[in-house]
Amino acid sequence: MNNYTDLDYAKLDTDRFSRTGFAEVVFCQGKQDNFLKDIFFQLYNTHGKVLGTRATAHQFEIIKTILPEAIYDEVGRVIKVQTDNEPLIGNVVVATAGTADIPVAKEALSCGEFWGTNMIALYDVGVSGIHRILSNKELLDKANCVIAIAGMDGALPSVIGGLVNVPVIAVPTSVGYGANFGGLSPLLTMLNSCANGVSVVNIDNGFSAAYIATQINRLVVRGGKNE
Amino acid sequence: MNNYTDLDYAKLDTDRFSRTGFAEVVFCQGKQDNFLKDIFFQLYNTHGKVLGTRATAHQFEIIKTILPEAIYDEVGRVIKVQTDNEPLIGNVVVATAGTADIPVAKEALSCGEFWGTNMIALYDVGVSGIHRILSNKELLDKANCVIAIAGMDGALPSVIGGLVNVPVIAVPTSVGYGANFGGLSPLLTMLNSCANGVSVVNIDNGFSAAYIATQINRLVVRGGKNE
Amino acid sequence: MNNYTDLDYAKLDTDRFSRTGFAEVVFCQGKQDNFLKDIFFQLYNTHGKVLGTRATAHQFEIIKTILPEAIYDEVGRVIKVQTDNEPLIGNVVVATAGTADIPVAKEALSCGEFWGTNMIALYDVGVSGIHRILSNKELLDKANCVIAIAGMDGALPSVIGGLVNVPVIAVPTSVGYGANFGGLSPLLTMLNSCANGVSVVNIDNGFSAAYIATQINRLVVRGGKNE
Amino acid sequence: MNNYTDLDYAKLDTDRFSRTGFAEVVFCQGKQDNFLKDIFFQLYNTHGKVLGTRATAHQFEIIKTILPEAIYDEVGRVIKVQTDNEPLIGNVVVATAGTADIPVAKEALSCGEFWGTNMIALYDVGVSGIHRILSNKELLDKANCVIAIAGMDGALPSVIGGLVNVPVIAVPTSVGYGANFGGLSPLLTMLNSCANGVSVVNIDNGFSAAYIATQINRLVVRGGKNE
Amino acid sequence: MNNYTDLDYAKLDTDRFSRTGFAEVVFCQGKQDNFLKDIFFQLYNTHGKVLGTRATAHQFEIIKTILPEAIYDEVGRVIKVQTDNEPLIGNVVVATAGTADIPVAKEALSCGEFWGTNMIALYDVGVSGIHRILSNKELLDKANCVIAIAGMDGALPSVIGGLVNVPVIAVPTSVGYGANFGGLSPLLTMLNSCANGVSVVNIDNGFSAAYIATQINRLVVRGGKNE
Amino acid sequence: MNNYTDLDYAKLDTDRFSRTGFAEVVFCQGKQDNFLKDIFFQLYNTHGKVLGTRATAHQFEIIKTILPEAIYDEVGRVIKVQTDNEPLIGNVVVATAGTADIPVAKEALSCGEFWGTNMIALYDVGVSGIHRILSNKELLDKANCVIAIAGMDGALPSVIGGLVNVPVIAVPTSVGYGANFGGLSPLLTMLNSCANGVSVVNIDNGFSAAYIATQINRLVVRGGKNE
Amino acid sequence: MNNYTDLDYAKLDTDRFSRTGFAEVVFCQGKQDNFLKDIFFQLYNTHGKVLGTRATAHQFEIIKTILPEAIYDEVGRVIKVQTDNEPLIGNVVVATAGTADIPVAKEALSCGEFWGTNMIALYDVGVSGIHRILSNKELLDKANCVIAIAGMDGALPSVIGGLVNVPVIAVPTSVGYGANFGGLSPLLTMLNSCANGVSVVNIDNGFSAAYIATQINRLVVRGGKNE
Amino acid sequence: MNNYTDLDYAKLDTDRFSRTGFAEVVFCQGKQDNFLKDIFFQLYNTHGKVLGTRATAHQFEIIKTILPEAIYDEVGRVIKVQTDNEPLIGNVVVATAGTADIPVAKEALSCGEFWGTNMIALYDVGVSGIHRILSNKELLDKANCVIAIAGMDGALPSVIGGLVNVPVIAVPTSVGYGANFGGLSPLLTMLNSCANGVSVVNIDNGFSAAYIATQINRLVVRGGKNE
Repeated sequence: MNNYTDLDYAKLDTDRFSRTGFAEVVFCQGKQDNFLKDIFFQLYNTHGKVLGTRATAHQFEIIKTILPEAIYDEVGRVIKVQTDNEPLIGNVVVATAGTADIPVAKEALSCGEFWGTNMIALYDVGVSGIHRILSNKELLDKANCVIAIAGMDGALPSVIGGLVNVPVIAVPTSVGYGANFGGLSPLLTMLNSCANGVSVVNIDNGFSAAYIATQINRLVVRGGKNE
Repeated sequence: MNNYTDLDYAKLDTDRFSRTGFAEVVFCQGKQDNFLKDIFFQLYNTHGKVLGTRATAHQFEIIKTILPEAIYDEVGRVIKVQTDNEPLIGNVVVATAGTADIPVAKEALSCGEFWGTNMIALYDVGVSGIHRILSNKELLDKANCVIAIAGMDGALPSVIGGLVNVPVIAVPTSVGYGANFGGLSPLLTMLNSCANGVSVVNIDNGFSAAYIATQINRLVVRGGKNE
Repeated sequence: MNNYTDLDYAKLDTDRFSRTGFAEVVFCQGKQDNFLKDIFFQLYNTHGKVLGTRATAHQFEIIKTILPEAIYDEVGRVIKVQTDNEPLIGNVVVATAGTADIPVAKEALSCGEFWGTNMIALYDVGVSGIHRILSNKELLDKANCVIAIAGMDGALPSVIGGLVNVPVIAVPTSVGYGANFGGLSPLLTMLNSCANGVSVVNIDNGFSAAYIATQINRLVVRGGKNE
Repeated sequence: MNNYTDLDYAKLDTDRFSRTGFAEVVFCQGKQDNFLKDIFFQLYNTHGKVLGTRATAHQFEIIKTILPEAIYDEVGRVIKVQTDNEPLIGNVVVATAGTADIPVAKEALSCGEFWGTNMIALYDVGVSGIHRILSNKELLDKANCVIAIAGMDGALPSVIGGLVNVPVIAVPTSVGYGANFGGLSPLLTMLNSCANGVSVVNIDNGFSAAYIATQINRLVVRGGKNE
Repeated sequence: MNNYTDLDYAKLDTDRFSRTGFAEVVFCQGKQDNFLKDIFFQLYNTHGKVLGTRATAHQFEIIKTILPEAIYDEVGRVIKVQTDNEPLIGNVVVATAGTADIPVAKEALSCGEFWGTNMIALYDVGVSGIHRILSNKELLDKANCVIAIAGMDGALPSVIGGLVNVPVIAVPTSVGYGANFGGLSPLLTMLNSCANGVSVVNIDNGFSAAYIATQINRLVVRGGKNE
Repeated sequence: MNNYTDLDYAKLDTDRFSRTGFAEVVFCQGKQDNFLKDIFFQLYNTHGKVLGTRATAHQFEIIKTILPEAIYDEVGRVIKVQTDNEPLIGNVVVATAGTADIPVAKEALSCGEFWGTNMIALYDVGVSGIHRILSNKELLDKANCVIAIAGMDGALPSVIGGLVNVPVIAVPTSVGYGANFGGLSPLLTMLNSCANGVSVVNIDNGFSAAYIATQINRLVVRGGKNE
Repeated sequence: MNNYTDLDYAKLDTDRFSRTGFAEVVFCQGKQDNFLKDIFFQLYNTHGKVLGTRATAHQFEIIKTILPEAIYDEVGRVIKVQTDNEPLIGNVVVATAGTADIPVAKEALSCGEFWGTNMIALYDVGVSGIHRILSNKELLDKANCVIAIAGMDGALPSVIGGLVNVPVIAVPTSVGYGANFGGLSPLLTMLNSCANGVSVVNIDNGFSAAYIATQINRLVVRGGKNE
Repeated sequence: MNNYTDLDYAKLDTDRFSRTGFAEVVFCQGKQDNFLKDIFFQLYNTHGKVLGTRATAHQFEIIKTILPEAIYDEVGRVIKVQTDNEPLIGNVVVATAGTADIPVAKEALSCGEFWGTNMIALYDVGVSGIHRILSNKELLDKANCVIAIAGMDGALPSVIGGLVNVPVIAVPTSVGYGANFGGLSPLLTMLNSCANGVSVVNIDNGFSAAYIATQINRLVVRGGKNE
């Protein structure tokens, strides 16, 4: 269990794919340009594809100079370098309470698709107009997992949790002001959800929600270990 | 503007009824027995009726010795001494998310009725089974004001706020555990409600919600100042 | 109960006016220019008028290009497009503790007037010079509802709550520094008000206070449901 | 979508099983004896089985008087009434960091088994003796989902998340003292996990973790919707 | 500057009187009986008088066995042993917002009088009935210092600070519930007071307020250092 | 008790000097240029002098155009317009723990001197080199009041409180990082001071400390009310 | 690196002594009687000695039935079973700010001595009488490490840190009330210490401080690895 | 014990070296240019070397004009002026969980080396790829002290604490987002570490960790006081 690539300032966990089914992903935020280039290059060489999150437009320009096939999701701030073209599998719904939550949803969508998951967006179905989510019950029923993204009161996952029979991954966002306290309010709401089947990831963490949804979706489609 | 009854340890604001339309209410919690008796007696003498909240069964026994017509709402912990029998007016709905929120609702119901408001209870309509509140839309539509009481995720007021055209008074409760933090979680949820028309009172404060609902109900039924 | 206009990135709740008596309002903060234009246009077409809050001067310029009759309240950061000219009804007083709270008051004033409410400003009547609010008792007595806005110690609503017989909507502001913690201090003060009749909305949320005050004012002037 | 049994103080969501695959579960904490008996009886009649959590020994005695086949998990504080005897399916590992976390694990184990999931306990494998979890890698590799329970520093899920290719449901516990702040410390640790695939439920909430693990386990064993 | 009496488990600062004008005071809470007796005895021997705060009735019984002239303020939880009979000097007003704040006021009154200060109580003058404090303006004008004690919204010091020309020592109390958070709410209110001349001591700390008020009162009556 | 100058956006409390002995002070932060000029002008006309705090260099330029005798303390961010030349009275020491706390000290020094108090600075005497404050014991002994300013651990007031027989006004500063939480850490330290005679004002609030020190100093020098 | 004793409910890390130089210690709080007995017995068998912390008198009685040579430190709540009699080495000073901090100091003293460290107590030397700690400078100078224990303002470690040339392990205690928030206040003080050489352990954690002090003391006396 | 150099705005503690073995270090952040130059110059003259932390590139330019031999660690933001060339002694390992924690590690490395300690960097060995730290067990075994630096979940020190027999100084970093709350999350994790031998310094405080590690390393290499 001991393989990694030592770049001194980083120890790339090249063994991770064999353990977890996912190669290491680059968290771009705050990384120096030369480190970033190096890390993308090494990971691309090892895995034939590479994913970066929280990336600026500037960082995308840097990466394109060495990996020209890179593409950029500007809203979700995701860089992807990926040449394979396997079909997307399964079904995950990504629902947001409001329009302002879309950047977090986009991060989830881009990451999920990079990992081969069929992701379906359902924006602006917050509980203040409850008919909007109820009208989309049929769509929810097709999912192996639902990602529910909300800022402000964070109430959306509780409503969805009561409507479906699959796990709901709740993502609080920092959308709001005042007593939102940078996403603390929806975070607490979601942790205290009165509906079952709701688990929570960090504030604004669309990446992590997509990762878990992909794990579940893969298990369902490919089959688990002990049937 | 200077009338009060000075009992040394308390200055009873006997002028309050003329300013606000409500006589002073006794917050019983932590009051010494002899002070309590004195205060009930003075207020009863002044106003012909008196209301006490957060009262223990022991305190009720004390009050009954001097004011035998006193009655006690054990669940809502309210003592009422009231001989008039005016009809209740208007319509206020008191909705709770769960069964555990009933004590707070009872406090609101007892207080509202003491002040002459027609209060209607609607228990256990939390958002995890969203059809329960939707099935009672007609009842909500009859209210001049809705009191929405919830612990845990505190999501109920956001859903109700999107369904009605009257003010929603949201009451967070300390029902829950862990990251509920004694009611902090639903309190923040309600302050950040994505629905409009929602204002919030202190945790477990059914009394205050009933007070405001009564103000609104009276204004509507009796007419306001500048029609 | 299922109508909405689906713009993909937004589901405009065009049914909201019939349920709540208020059309959807645009929260402009952080919205992309093209989304914003689209949303304003759609809502204007549906309702013949449209209101936006938390708008920058730049956003106002954008909106004016498509809806030239738009006007802008620079201090309150509100955009209004409204051609009808119905008379304002009723009476709501908007009181602030200090001069620095005026932007929040302006948001309330602009929104309330957009919705047809007669709003009266009363600035800089904080409790450190208590004669200032006492001198205006007569003005307060004419209101169907009082909005009390304060930062720092947030004490103003408690004093007003003891003086009037109508609901007080308390708005904490982020005015202050140090242990103000971005408005947390006045928020807690208001939630713990020793006066009755005080309910609270989110920090700096003049919009929400005006919404509730308008609900109450309309109920009073137009009459409620069960007289 | 409108079925529920109205007991006035409770609206039993008897439709929930058809929507979510789980019948309503009784949260016993703080419920009055007569309410509790009624609710257990109604749910048992509807579904032929019933589960209660956070139950005291006293409450168990109460339930046994009406449902003599009830059994009680004293450590996990779970009451089960269940006459069917279907075989457990799949595989979920429930790991704890310490011995003091066992009550939370027991709640998860009892609930998971009630719902038909094959649950395997792995106690006291906290990171301060890292060889204990590493020695059990083979066991972890058999799971469709891992529940990782920890108080104090809450580090266990981060280590497990890096070792497996299935979702890790992290449960912070209130085990600890001082700067643990009633479980806040491990809660934050888990939300900020450096490992992927970790989502979090409320403090001490073994029930919820078992629910989600059962959802995943069922999806894997029974197959999902869109293979 | 090196004198103290070493009892091993305590180092009595017998030099303190000469440095600060106050002998060491015994904080009784949580002290073992034998330690307590010893400390009272030593301090009495050194100074001819001794003061203890946060004392239980049991602790008072203990002290009376060795110092029979001890007296006990049951509400303020203060033990005093004092045989001198010097006249009280100056004038300090101790105002409370409510009746429930009286125990904190009593601690201040007992301590202040022990140190020779003329203390005047003014109970239950909270801001929800603002005329009660305004009616007592003349009393406030006679003070060299005002102690203002309040729980809940903690607004009283802000109003008093705007009325007087002497320092206001603000004491937040833990009176309240819910979002009071054990006195945090009035503490923050007082730290953010919009009135000047207000400084704050710890929650429920009547002792400390009396100490500072006595310092000021002594300086005024006896004269300061550099006139 | 009803005099104020109504500027609509501000109600200048021109009566304040007669009540409290201090004219209204301008809190410049965030005030619009035209409002600021107006307010300075009105207050100068009424009182013949005016003081502004939290002022930018730009605001000083604005004020100089209308009141050329204005002077500016750049470090303390204070504007003074004052033509009288009365001698400073009494003695207040302003001690800081570090060099970084000097701006807060300067605010206190400038304000105190404006109000006629003789203020003495003692910088950089924090407890990590305890001999620095001990060497200045003689200076402390001359003061009628000590202002103790500290960020980081906020320990300075506790040490000074044990050395002097006059009140210590403690000012926490936002100097520090990490777990300082914007001054919260020294604020709590000071509220929990183990030394007596310490009261606390808001974070970075040199102004308020100078105000209270001036009240005490005046009372001592001019004599109090009831000797 | 894989040895442990599997008791099912616990995996005793019997390898720990060889890795860290300390055998596993029993945290008794909340452990069931039968588990406790078992664990003590196993550890005693393996190591010939065993240490338990946070133990009640009842738990001590339980342990004595199986290990009669067990002794109990009632104040420090420590159980020791130890037959060897090696001399204590080196020198660690355990200083407390007050008498109320002694239980935490006792835990440190008992544990340190169990591990062979020469521990010296220095009680009640808090900073409000600064001469008490200064008078003991000579004692401090003999230590290889100082443990500084304080509640309330937590200022003691900052003063000691400036006086010595060895590490200071700071232990915040929950001694205090109000804004102490269960030890949060001294914890923050210590983390923000203006003196260097101060590191911090959990609130009331005398055990952990003794552990680290013993590590340092052993390294110094026995010599390190790379001289 | 009374020597310091008084620069008015600063009292340089020139005696500190003789008390603690470390000369005063300049915390550059926020210091005015002229103050900074002065302080560097005075300390260099006294001690022949000087160290500054939290320095900007601009500040380095300023210092170079007066002390041309100054060098700058740009990542760690440290300025050193040091002409002696003594060999580094002992062995301290500085481990980080991720690449983003390197700036904090660099501060520790630069400071430790300035003080003569042999520091060894071990970057990016976080627990999500646990084999990375386990592979470096041999390196850890050579250290007299380990500094463990981590943001996000802060789990690294708990794992290291279980592997080594020397003190672990844990440094939480502000690396992360959302529920990291500026480093609060790893700070709490580390304070609650389930491993022993872990003490904690302030968030991002590499300087302080290096100071303590140097104290320990010196004691070990040079010998302590009482062998």
